This record gives sequence, C-alpha cells and structure tokens, in this order.
Amino acid sequence: MITDPFDAGPRGAFKALCRSYPDDTVFRGDDGFRSLWGPIFYRGRADGSARLLVIGQDPAQTEAFTRRILSGQAGRRVQGFVEKLGLTRRYLMVNAFLYGIYNQDMALPHLHDPEIEAYRNQWLRAALAPGRIEAVVTFGTPAREAWKAFLQSPAGAGVTVFQQAALHPTADKPNGPISRQDLLDNWNVALQHLHPRIAHPDAAVPLVPYGADFTAAELPEIPSRDLPMGLQAWMRSTDFWATLASPPGTERANISIQVP
Amino acid sequence: MITDPFDAGPRGAFKALCRSYPDDTVFRGDDGFRSLWGPIFYRGRADGSARLLVIGQDPAQTEAFTRRILSGQAGRRVQGFVEKLGLTRRYLMVNAFLYGIYNQDMALPHLHDPEIEAYRNQWLRAALAPGRIEAVVTFGTPAREAWKAFLQSPAGAGVTVFQQAALHPTADKPNGPISRQDLLDNWNVALQHLHPRIAHPDAAVPLVPYGADFTAAELPEIPSRDLPMGLQAWMRSTDFWATLASPPGTERANISIQVP
Repeated sequence: MITDPFDAGPRGAFKALCRSYPDDTVFRGDDGFRSLWGPIFYRGRADGSARLLVIGQDPAQTEAFTRRILSGQAGRRVQGFVEKLGLTRRYLMVNAFLYGIYNQDMALPHLHDPEIEAYRNQWLRAALAPGRIEAVVTFGTPAREAWKAFLQSPAGAGVTVFQQAALHPTADKPNGPISRQDLLDNWNVALQHLHPRIAHPDAAVPLVPYGADFTAAELPEIPSRDLPMGLQAWMRSTDFWATLASPPGTERANISIQVP
Repeated sequence: MITDPFDAGPRGAFKALCRSYPDDTVFRGDDGFRSLWGPIFYRGRADGSARLLVIGQDPAQTEAFTRRILSGQAGRRVQGFVEKLGLTRRYLMVNAFLYGIYNQDMALPHLHDPEIEAYRNQWLRAALAPGRIEAVVTFGTPAREAWKAFLQSPAGAGVTVFQQAALHPTADKPNGPISRQDLLDNWNVALQHLHPRIAHPDAAVPLVPYGADFTAAELPEIPSRDLPMGLQAWMRSTDFWATLASPPGTERANISIQVP
C-alpha cells in the first residue's frame, strides 16, 4: 500500500484566490507569458499555518504537471534550503508570476503591471493575515522587487516581518557570471540571517551551511504532502522528467513527459 | 478574471481511500498495468452528495495529466450521457481499475485479484454509504463484472440499488464489430432504464435520445468543478491533446502534451 499524505488543497482566502485569478488578458502570451498552461498557485501550506513565506519567480514545465510551484530542480534546491531552517512542512511558497514565462526579457518588465501586482499582493496579504509568518525569503530579483512593491502598497502598510533576499535557486547557469559556489555562499548568508528568526520550526535543528556543492541530502524530495493526491515518488525525487518539446522558446511549447 | 469552480478534493472515507491505496506490487507492470503514472481515483463528487454512481474501466494519458478519470474522449461522451439524466454535478465516477492499462489481454484477467477487488469494493461501499445513490451505471464489461463481484462480496451484502449496464464509451472502434449506431442504440436503452430512477436530478430534463451520431451538445466539456484548480478551458473542451509517445504499447510509454 502507498500511504503518502497529499495536499488537501487551499483553505479560506487562499482557496478564494485559486477560484478567481487573472487570465491571459493580464498575463499575455505576447508579453512572454506561457498562459496556455494555466496558473500554478503555490506549494506548501495554504491554510494559515505557515511560519516561512517563500517567494519565487515563475513555474516551468514540471510544475505544469504537478500543479504546484517549485517542484522541479529549483524546487528541490529550495526544499533543502527551508529544511535547513527546521521547516519540513510549515512554509508557504508563492511566485512573483502566476504563470510561466517563455521570454524573460519580455515578461519581467510586467512585474508591476497593476493587475499582476494587485493579485500577487492579495496572496502576500493572505499569507501574512494569520499572523504566523516569522520571516520572508525572496529568491531572485523579481521576487525581491515583488516584496518591495508589496510593502509600498496599501496591502503591505505596517508590515514589519523580517525579509531576506537570496539568489534564484538556479542562478548558477553554465558559463554564467554566478558559480555554484557563489550561489551557495549567498544562500549561507541568507540562512544565517533567517535561522534565528524562525521561532517555531517544525524541528529545531542547528544550522549546517552548504559546502562547495549541493549534497544529496541537500536536494531532498518534494514532500508528498505538498503535491496532489496520487503523484508518485519518481515525480518528487527526480528532475528533468518533464521537458519542453520543440520549439522550446515559444508560448505554445509542448511538454514531453518521460518516465525515468 | 477566471472564476471557474474547481474540485476541492475528496472528503471523509473517499479522502482516506486516496491516502492509502494499492501500489505496483498489486497493479504490476508485468501484468499489463501502467502503474508508473500513479493512481487516478475518481471524477465528480467524492463527498457523499452523488446521486448516480458511474463505473468505468481504467484511466489513460489525458487523465494522467488532469488526475481525474474520464476526462478525455471517453469522459466527454460519458459527461453527455449523465447530463441527459439531468445530472450536471451530483455524480461520482470511479473505475474498475485504479491504474491505467497498457495491455488489456494481460490486465483484464486481474479484475478479481483479491487486493484489486477489495480496494475497489471499498470505493463502491463508500459511494453507497451516504444512502443517496439512486442508480449505478457500468460502462463496459470489466465495470459490469466489478459491480457483480461487489454484490457478491460482504461489502455489497444487501445492496439493492438499481444497476444498468452500458457499452464502453469508445466501444465503437474503427473496423470493429460495434458501430457508432450500435453504441448509441445501446446507450439509448440504458438511458430509458436509468432516467426514471433519478429522483433527484440537478435539473429535471426530459430524456432526449441520441440520434445517428454524437452531436456537439452531446459532447459537453468536462466541468471545471470536476478538475483540479487552475486547469484551463482547452483541457476540458478538446480531445487528444495528450498522446502516448513512442513506444506506445509498453509500461514505460511517455506522454506528449500538445497545446491545441
């Protein structure tokens, strides 16, 4: 028998936000968004119990299948990060963009489009409303800018929760300016700032920093309780089983799913 | 804004059955099952409110993406069928087999394997337990045999609900022995028997039989309230966007998803 817990879904204000959301006239295909795959709303506890709020950037093809954000390669890196803070379940992850992006140069300038920002701010307000969030971590520049904009909005007035910026989980592109070591050094600094802020971890653990590379233990599987019912272990513990079929760089890219 | 309702998930006994289910040692790859894609549990109201219980056969590749049964071509045909009974929401659909089948000759003989039958009977018992089901319709031979086996089991003792057998929704294979007209004639007979049994339809409608072929109105879209949050209209109203990639006839077939 398989007895994995699964995500029973959003509650309250979170559920309402999954029930009413901007469409492809807001996240336009011509603006670089892959709105055809639909929105991917969150991962983690959309029920008011979260202690850490994680803000990422946008969902990709793996997430189009799992229907939860941060469940592919970037997601497993982030999962290791939050578990170093002693958080194995009481986190909520949302993205700066509700829909995937196929062209960053086109899409990122729309971060502050009024309807995009207003909807995102509703999520951030809903996350903070229960009063349990002890820290916010933003991964990547759009996430950091999204948080800043929230603080400057009416919805964010008076918010004083601690916020830490970190590099995007896959900022270490091959031949790019940011090395794996740069990424992990940045994450170690972020962890040092965040760790003392989490007063109610799921399990109190001493902070163990990253070394020169991610270890296997630092790339844990996505917890089954974060994903819909019936998703299998290989969907949580392996990467790259969902790939963009040809042509990859367009709005209408297709997905190829390969059983590992 | 998109304001589609979505399926908030199973409740009570149904939720428990989605939390604990047979694995690939029961639905074995060597026995013709595509267990790698995981189980697909139901479609419709897994909350005790259903008036009609639909039993189908097994999920295919479209359902592996939507994570709800009967949401591809066969599902749209069945949707038209239940709507002819005035049921637009209060139905529950389950399958004879929890996992997909890649080889019917290998898999169908396992219909009565003790663990397969016992788990399926738990679903049928849960469906009947609230006392609201007014009729059962089985689509195809495995579904009919599954119902018979349930009645002969301890779980089915004393069950007297009306049951109607119908041909499988895609029984009309090209060059096969069953024509489209044969299928629709069979379904018309089934509808005549079922229609008077539904005492509490969602909307009372006179029975309009099928003609020589499915009309567009007889292939309605899968209701958004039957699918997980965020799935888009094209996933509900078009067919064949999910196909088996090469090689199609093996356990490890991959899925290719094409945006229409």
